Amino acid sequence: MKRFIGVILLLVCCLLSSVNGGLVPKDIVPQGGLSPQTEACIGCHHIYTPGIVYDWMTSRHSKTLPVEAMKKAPLEKRISVDSLPKSLQGYVVGCYECHSLNTDSHKDNFKHMGYSINVVVTPNDCKTCHPVEAQQFAGSKKSYAYKNLMGNPLYHSLVSTVTGMRRFEKNQILAEKPSDATLHETCLGCHGTKVEAQGLKTIPTKLGEVQVPDLTNWPNQGVGRVNPDGSAGACTACHPRHGFSIEVARKPYTCSQCHLEPDVPAWNVYSESKHGNIYSSKYQQWNFDSVPWVIGKDFSAPSCATCHNSLVVSPDNAVVAERTHDFGSRLWVRLFGLIYSHPQPKSGDTTIIRNRDGLPLPVTFAGEPASGFLIDRPEQDKRLQEMSGICRNCHSSHWTASHFAKLDSTINETNRMTAAATNLMAKAWGEKIEDNSNPFDESIEQMWSSQWLFYSNSIRYASAMTGAPDYASFKNGWWHLNTNLQHMKNWIEFKKELTEKD
Amino acid sequence: MKRFIGVILLLVCCLLSSVNGGLVPKDIVPQGGLSPQTEACIGCHHIYTPGIVYDWMTSRHSKTLPVEAMKKAPLEKRISVDSLPKSLQGYVVGCYECHSLNTDSHKDNFKHMGYSINVVVTPNDCKTCHPVEAQQFAGSKKSYAYKNLMGNPLYHSLVSTVTGMRRFEKNQILAEKPSDATLHETCLGCHGTKVEAQGLKTIPTKLGEVQVPDLTNWPNQGVGRVNPDGSAGACTACHPRHGFSIEVARKPYTCSQCHLEPDVPAWNVYSESKHGNIYSSKYQQWNFDSVPWVIGKDFSAPSCATCHNSLVVSPDNAVVAERTHDFGSRLWVRLFGLIYSHPQPKSGDTTIIRNRDGLPLPVTFAGEPASGFLIDRPEQDKRLQEMSGICRNCHSSHWTASHFAKLDSTINETNRMTAAATNLMAKAWGEKIEDNSNPFDESIEQMWSSQWLFYSNSIRYASAMTGAPDYASFKNGWWHLNTNLQHMKNWIEFKKELTEKD
Amino acid sequence: MKRFIGVILLLVCCLLSSVNGGLVPKDIVPQGGLSPQTEACIGCHHIYTPGIVYDWMTSRHSKTLPVEAMKKAPLEKRISVDSLPKSLQGYVVGCYECHSLNTDSHKDNFKHMGYSINVVVTPNDCKTCHPVEAQQFAGSKKSYAYKNLMGNPLYHSLVSTVTGMRRFEKNQILAEKPSDATLHETCLGCHGTKVEAQGLKTIPTKLGEVQVPDLTNWPNQGVGRVNPDGSAGACTACHPRHGFSIEVARKPYTCSQCHLEPDVPAWNVYSESKHGNIYSSKYQQWNFDSVPWVIGKDFSAPSCATCHNSLVVSPDNAVVAERTHDFGSRLWVRLFGLIYSHPQPKSGDTTIIRNRDGLPLPVTFAGEPASGFLIDRPEQDKRLQEMSGICRNCHSSHWTASHFAKLDSTINETNRMTAAATNLMAKAWGEKIEDNSNPFDESIEQMWSSQWLFYSNSIRYASAMTGAPDYASFKNGWWHLNTNLQHMKNWIEFKKELTEKD
Repeated sequence: MKRFIGVILLLVCCLLSSVNGGLVPKDIVPQGGLSPQTEACIGCHHIYTPGIVYDWMTSRHSKTLPVEAMKKAPLEKRISVDSLPKSLQGYVVGCYECHSLNTDSHKDNFKHMGYSINVVVTPNDCKTCHPVEAQQFAGSKKSYAYKNLMGNPLYHSLVSTVTGMRRFEKNQILAEKPSDATLHETCLGCHGTKVEAQGLKTIPTKLGEVQVPDLTNWPNQGVGRVNPDGSAGACTACHPRHGFSIEVARKPYTCSQCHLEPDVPAWNVYSESKHGNIYSSKYQQWNFDSVPWVIGKDFSAPSCATCHNSLVVSPDNAVVAERTHDFGSRLWVRLFGLIYSHPQPKSGDTTIIRNRDGLPLPVTFAGEPASGFLIDRPEQDKRLQEMSGICRNCHSSHWTASHFAKLDSTINETNRMTAAATNLMAKAWGEKIEDNSNPFDESIEQMWSSQWLFYSNSIRYASAMTGAPDYASFKNGWWHLNTNLQHMKNWIEFKKELTEKD
Repeated sequence: MKRFIGVILLLVCCLLSSVNGGLVPKDIVPQGGLSPQTEACIGCHHIYTPGIVYDWMTSRHSKTLPVEAMKKAPLEKRISVDSLPKSLQGYVVGCYECHSLNTDSHKDNFKHMGYSINVVVTPNDCKTCHPVEAQQFAGSKKSYAYKNLMGNPLYHSLVSTVTGMRRFEKNQILAEKPSDATLHETCLGCHGTKVEAQGLKTIPTKLGEVQVPDLTNWPNQGVGRVNPDGSAGACTACHPRHGFSIEVARKPYTCSQCHLEPDVPAWNVYSESKHGNIYSSKYQQWNFDSVPWVIGKDFSAPSCATCHNSLVVSPDNAVVAERTHDFGSRLWVRLFGLIYSHPQPKSGDTTIIRNRDGLPLPVTFAGEPASGFLIDRPEQDKRLQEMSGICRNCHSSHWTASHFAKLDSTINETNRMTAAATNLMAKAWGEKIEDNSNPFDESIEQMWSSQWLFYSNSIRYASAMTGAPDYASFKNGWWHLNTNLQHMKNWIEFKKELTEKD
Repeated sequence: MKRFIGVILLLVCCLLSSVNGGLVPKDIVPQGGLSPQTEACIGCHHIYTPGIVYDWMTSRHSKTLPVEAMKKAPLEKRISVDSLPKSLQGYVVGCYECHSLNTDSHKDNFKHMGYSINVVVTPNDCKTCHPVEAQQFAGSKKSYAYKNLMGNPLYHSLVSTVTGMRRFEKNQILAEKPSDATLHETCLGCHGTKVEAQGLKTIPTKLGEVQVPDLTNWPNQGVGRVNPDGSAGACTACHPRHGFSIEVARKPYTCSQCHLEPDVPAWNVYSESKHGNIYSSKYQQWNFDSVPWVIGKDFSAPSCATCHNSLVVSPDNAVVAERTHDFGSRLWVRLFGLIYSHPQPKSGDTTIIRNRDGLPLPVTFAGEPASGFLIDRPEQDKRLQEMSGICRNCHSSHWTASHFAKLDSTINETNRMTAAATNLMAKAWGEKIEDNSNPFDESIEQMWSSQWLFYSNSIRYASAMTGAPDYASFKNGWWHLNTNLQHMKNWIEFKKELTEKD
């Protein structure tokens, strides 16, 4: 009976909404511009999920006709498509405009109140208006974040070793495979899960039971999420629903969801740096919403987006850097050591890499880069020049060059420190103190992993931003790099002692 | 002589103030509304402690007549009493209105410039205008924070072991009891100290010597502080003096004073989460002062208070959640493992709990909950539904249900990991490698404590907010949970080796 | 050819600018007040480094004639000189006014577009208008930050041990000296590098090649930087170029560039404290730019600068504390243990200290202070009273006194804990388990260093601000202080076992 009343209510609500939008209070929707379908959505959802309706109302999408957006001057454009289907031209970008696209490829499509709705909006849908950004993103490592981690046997093994359960049985610690739930909220929280539709599911709502697609590993906004339409990525990783704000994406808190200590301490280093200090002290006086983004006028110190992504111009509107959604495209070196820091890979898909040892790693254990898969010197120089060009809007050429020369030295030193640790581990393997069947699961191996994954990485990030001297010294840097190396040596001696006794 | 002049000055100051308030500049106090007593307080204190006088001037208390506050519509009310003594009706809430209440029970009462003043204002005093909040708080675990820690022999033993001094004598490390000063600024900094009045004390001031109550373990604003009037709690833990602001309490920095890594990393996880990112990026555009607090209009992502405490309504003024000052009342599970995560206790007083082993722990060492003292399944479901109801203002039912199903899985996994560590420790005890007289003071025991108190807790907090994947992976989560378990096993082997040799 | 065109362009640009400033758009410079030289600078630099030009435009320097600044009432003055050379009187403080001073002593001076320009502006240059601040700073430990670290053989040895490379050879870990690059971005990132001019260097710019001074260890803004004019310090450590803002220096993010965990966790403790909570919740409603800074009116909780540096007055303009740029001048005790906490040194130059053991340490290994080099009791009391006077603007005398009594107790306890660890290490040395030739390079010594440098320091900082109880308990405090002491003892036992076997 309860269920029956629910269904009736739903029908009435839906009917009223789609007929005349009468359920939508005038003060919560912009005058004109709403498609009838979106008006119907809001008719119910302003009551059932008001949070997202109101959030969308703060967005540019809720106030912008795509045809108007397309008329803007090139530097001011936020839309990159040249022509749009008629159905999207006359309305602001509402619920239905995004949730109804490319339904054929969407395994998460379902019938909802008479409409054909996708649960998940994907980069392939956003591409309708933002094809340049979708295209750039599709070629980036971020887009391959799931595949690069889970499709690489070596990294997959690290993932399983780190996040898998253990049980204690017969005097042994036995490893289990990690559960989907744990993968979901650890590694794949950032890298993205594989979301698949497995039929429909009946769920209770305020209005009675409804049927919705049953999605695996959902909800998730990891940047390399594999979507039910086969596409990869989640624009919402950086532009959270339903405001899709450029302001949020330009503020460093967005990047700080994932680029964090101990392995990728970009945020930690930034927040301790001079740039981070100026940002924190002054950002409320800056403009994070303007396109293009004007150095000196809109801001006086960079956030992450300034150097890595945004369309940045000088006050006289000269382009300093073009907008890019290929997040590595201004980078020549990959600080994140695997296991050594190395030139950026050519392809966003890093599973194709094979080093001289035949392993899917960009560098061999001995330190030799898999050069065929990495960008060459001219490309590295080109990118270094592009990044330096941003720096030079505030810093002299000498300053900028000296800064990056220091980074080069640090990359070299930390790579050598990794080599020392690798030699120690090889010695332990050679002496049968531990075995190399899984290079991540024993104590000496865990210490070795800390060397490159935590300490060397931290030092390099601190060097790259010339900030965080304390971080590079005591917090997660040289102090640990050196004491941990000593621990490795101690450990080998102890284990040898024990082994010999047996 | 110096003292004599001081006394004279005090008398003059006091006299002038109480006669006509002539010492209070017109521009620093609101026109009308001040009681003569409060006017006298301010007469001196705007000179001697201007910081708190001006802070109070920014408060609602300094501008509000309680009788007016009582007339507001139910959802807009910030005062919960139905009738007030006449003496409090006609004046704004000033110094004297709060510091002169219930003097009979206040052992910290003293004669000050002719008035009878309490040093400490307690929940029992605030109750005069806010009885509903005081009542809710009194039943909560927060109100028992001192007793639950110091009155539970097992936890008390943990406290003493962690914070007690050590000395090195005769080749032995000998433990001492922690000092009051150290307890005060460690555990009891959050849990609250026991503040007792032990007579009067003469102290020098700018105006000469004055006599004030000599209070032990003061100053302190711990949430479970035991007050000189016998009451428990400090409203100032979250509403700092003398602004008593709802804005401050709703911002997450307030909770972050105590709910911190490594044991209770609520703030750390929040700040790395999607909600935390949106908060940090947008909060300056939100309204933290409105009552009721309107989802979508006043804010677009939750802070701690949104989910745990505040009166939250939808834009059409439908109540989503009632205000509560019983901070666990919307929670079904207690993530904070003791030593396993378990259903919330029925009573805020957890010293009454006895598990099947007879220990004052909500779960046995083997993992069996003390069910009689914990809320039952229907109550758990009711609370889960209430919390989900808040989520569903922005997220679909499927989304919300999947989120909490994931949390269930994580609670189960981390509890099993704790069980593995407990088995290892039991083995060490069984083999006489260490002894269980104090389960916290030897190395294997410290590693075991880290497993549940730091790593399992961290993973559960990260899961509960689906944020901070990095935190749950490498920072304080699975990486440590697994490597530390390995360390426990290594440790047992080494100690055995040493023991056997002797 | 390319180079030739560049030179021509430069000349034209420079000529036009110096003749009529015609290249400077009217809307980017204030009407009048610019010196012809500064106008020439901006003529090119608004195009080539617009970031710093626009940043300077937000500054007080760009809008203020020094002669007008000198006329202000004493409490409102930001300039401390009594008379100025004529050349500086009639213009705002622009590029040339700062970069052209004291050229004779500047080894980094070079001919640039017809002008004689210093690359680095030093405290000795800022002294032209701010002699009182420069003088105070020159006597402070901050000004000696480079010398105190690198000129003290013991500390220098710590630096080298912590940041030096290691290589693994012939089964041994061999230490190397740290590189300049690594020193630069670790210890000397905060302490300051030694910047020296070593001739000229040709660098490519947008306008062709130019010759600039070749500076070593540059760029750097460490607070004790040794400058090419022989002076010490970098005002830009706290007042970042080219806004030179008092607002930035007063916000705690500035101090947080260096005063960070694990060794000097001032920021970490502050941000978890009640003061830090109020700051974070309310600072946007405060005024960080006013001089003098009025307690209660401009702010309602202190930032670092309030207690340590700023000219602070009460609302009736009574001076609570005078401005100081000698950062230790309000401090009686040095929390930062070397190796024990001790009274502040008399001189900013701590390399002159010799303790009874003849070591350049303020305390002996056994805990006896080098009293002759440290401030005496009356001076300590005087400074305690000055600091307490700031506290008492918001807190009672009893509150304040109790707070600092607690700190005294904690200093005593943590010093005793350091003594216990020192005894353990001495035992290890005595038993030849490790050797004391370098007191920082072996495992027992690293554990010992952690005791005072990380854990005792953390507890004392937490105590001094009565904040961060969690920090002092589990994060970096008593938990570690006690478990690490246990590790030291375990370590000695293991090593003994191994040694005996051999």
